[in-house]
Amino acid sequence: MRNEQSITDRLRALSVIPSSSPLVLGIGDDCAIYRPRGSADDLLFTTDLFVEGAHFLRETHKPAEVARKALTRSLSDIAAMGGSPRFCLVSLCVPKWATPAWLDKFFVALNAAASASEAFLAGGDLSHGEILVCDVTVCGAVPRGTALRRDGARPGHEIYISGKPGGSALGLQQGKGKAWKRHLNPEARLGLGAYIRQKLRATAAIDISDGISLDLRRLCLASGVAAEITDPPRFPGASPEQALHGGEEYELLFTVRPGTRVPSFFEGLPLTKIGVIAKGAPGEVRHNGNLLPALGYDHFQTK
Amino acid sequence: MRNEQSITDRLRALSVIPSSSPLVLGIGDDCAIYRPRGSADDLLFTTDLFVEGAHFLRETHKPAEVARKALTRSLSDIAAMGGSPRFCLVSLCVPKWATPAWLDKFFVALNAAASASEAFLAGGDLSHGEILVCDVTVCGAVPRGTALRRDGARPGHEIYISGKPGGSALGLQQGKGKAWKRHLNPEARLGLGAYIRQKLRATAAIDISDGISLDLRRLCLASGVAAEITDPPRFPGASPEQALHGGEEYELLFTVRPGTRVPSFFEGLPLTKIGVIAKGAPGEVRHNGNLLPALGYDHFQTK
Repeated sequence: MRNEQSITDRLRALSVIPSSSPLVLGIGDDCAIYRPRGSADDLLFTTDLFVEGAHFLRETHKPAEVARKALTRSLSDIAAMGGSPRFCLVSLCVPKWATPAWLDKFFVALNAAASASEAFLAGGDLSHGEILVCDVTVCGAVPRGTALRRDGARPGHEIYISGKPGGSALGLQQGKGKAWKRHLNPEARLGLGAYIRQKLRATAAIDISDGISLDLRRLCLASGVAAEITDPPRFPGASPEQALHGGEEYELLFTVRPGTRVPSFFEGLPLTKIGVIAKGAPGEVRHNGNLLPALGYDHFQTK
Repeated sequence: MRNEQSITDRLRALSVIPSSSPLVLGIGDDCAIYRPRGSADDLLFTTDLFVEGAHFLRETHKPAEVARKALTRSLSDIAAMGGSPRFCLVSLCVPKWATPAWLDKFFVALNAAASASEAFLAGGDLSHGEILVCDVTVCGAVPRGTALRRDGARPGHEIYISGKPGGSALGLQQGKGKAWKRHLNPEARLGLGAYIRQKLRATAAIDISDGISLDLRRLCLASGVAAEITDPPRFPGASPEQALHGGEEYELLFTVRPGTRVPSFFEGLPLTKIGVIAKGAPGEVRHNGNLLPALGYDHFQTK
C-alpha cells in the first residue's frame, strides 16, 4: 500500500542534505528553511498543487476562486511557520477549455491576492496540457532561527486550534450556503501565524489542510509525542466527524508551553484549547480517551 | 491570438513590485532575483513544468529520463544567470498509470541528479490527477549584484553559443540514435554559466530552451537591441532550420563586450561566435542579412 506519508518518508530518506548546505530544514514540515549567507532572516519555501479533478472542478470553481485557493494553500504553509510572504512563483498547465478570458480572470485574481499578502508574483511557467494544474511556490521570511516547526511539541504543552473546523467539508457536502462559501474562499492565517510565533512563542504549529486527525498526527510524529484531545469547536451545522477529519480548513493547530495566556480570540478568530501533548507512541492521538484514526485526506490512500 | 509572450507581457504589467521589496527582478528573465536582508548573495528562482503530452510521452520516456529532464529545465535557467544551485522543490501530479515502481525510479533519479548538482531536494507536493505533471522549482545563488540577465546586451557586443544546436529537434524527428539520446538527456550548462559570469564577464545570457530564433529575440527585446547572426554550428545531421529554431537544447547563448577573448572550448564544449548585437528595432534578428522569424516553440501559438 502506498500513501502520501510513505512516499514522503521514502523521499526524506533519499534526500541527504550535507551539513554544509544553507538548508536548515528539508522535507517533512510545512516549509523548507533556507539560511542565506550573512542574512538576518531565514527564508521559508513551500509549493502546493491545485489540480482539476483532484482539488476542484471547473464547473463549480470560478477562475478567481481557483486562483485564490491555489495561492491560499501555499500561503497557509507560510502562516503555519509564522512567516511573512515575500514572493510567489506560479506554474500553470492550461487545457483547451481555459479560454483567454478565463486565464485573464485567473491571473488578475491571483496577482491581486498575491499583492494583498505581499507575496508578489515574481515568475512562473506556462504549458498546455489535458487538465488544468496550478502549482504555487511561495517564499516567506522569519527572523533567523524563529520559524515555527512541527517538531517542537513536548508532553504537557497545550494544543490550540483557530476557527471552527468542519465548514469546508460541510460545504463540499451541501454545495451551497455559508459552508460552501467557506469551502470556496479559505483564508491563510498569516496574521495569526506571526502572532503565535512572536507573542505566544508557540512550540509547534501546522496548518489543517488535510484534517485535524491527520495533521495533528503529523505534528506528533515530527515531535515524537502523543496527544489527547476533546471535541474541537465546529462550524455551524458541521458534524463532529467533519470537524475532526475534514480537510481544506487552513486553520492553524499549534502548541504552547503550559500556563501560556492564550486569548479567546485573535482579530475576531476564535482560539480554542482542544487538548494536551502527552507521552506515548509517537503520532498516537486520543480523542475523549479513544484512539483517533487519521482519516484526513490522502491523495493515494484510496487507490 | 494569444501566445506565451502576450501572456507573459500581461502578467508583467499586472505584477507591480514595490521598490521596498527584496525582489530585485520579477517576471521576464530566466529567473527571479531576490536579495535577502544583509546577505552577500543574491538568490535566483525559477520554476518549470514538464507535462505528459506536451513535453514528453510515457511510451518514450523512462521515469529516470522524465526526472532528469524536468530538473534540467530549471537548472538550465540557473545556469543562464551564472548561478550555483542550492535546492529544489518538486511538485508531482500522479496519474493511475504511474505505478509505485515507476514513482520510485522517478524519485531516485531525481534525487541523484539534484544532489549531483547540489540542488538538494528540499520539499514539494503530491497530488493525484489525470496526467503526469511535474513542476520543479530551483533556487540558485550568485554573489550579490552579479547575476547574468537578458537585458545587458548593447550594440557591438558579440554573440556566442555553446554546443551544436539542432540535436534535440533532430532526435525528436528520428526517434533513435545519437540525436535521440541528446533529446532524452540534455545537460544544464552550470559550469559554463559560472565561467561566462566570472571570467568572461558576459553582458547578457539566456538558455536555448525554445530555439535560437525565439530565445535570441527574447534577449534582444529585453535589452532593447537587434542582432545579426550567421549560421550557427549544427549537431551532426541536423538541418539549418533545426539548428536555428529547434528547442530543448539547453545550450547557453550569451553576449560579451567586443574584444573579449572567448576560448573555442569550455571543458570540451564548443563556444562559437554567431553574430553581433546591433542597433535596430528591439527584438529584430537578421540571419545572413534576412529577417529571421521567431519560429521557436510556443505552447499557445498553434491553438
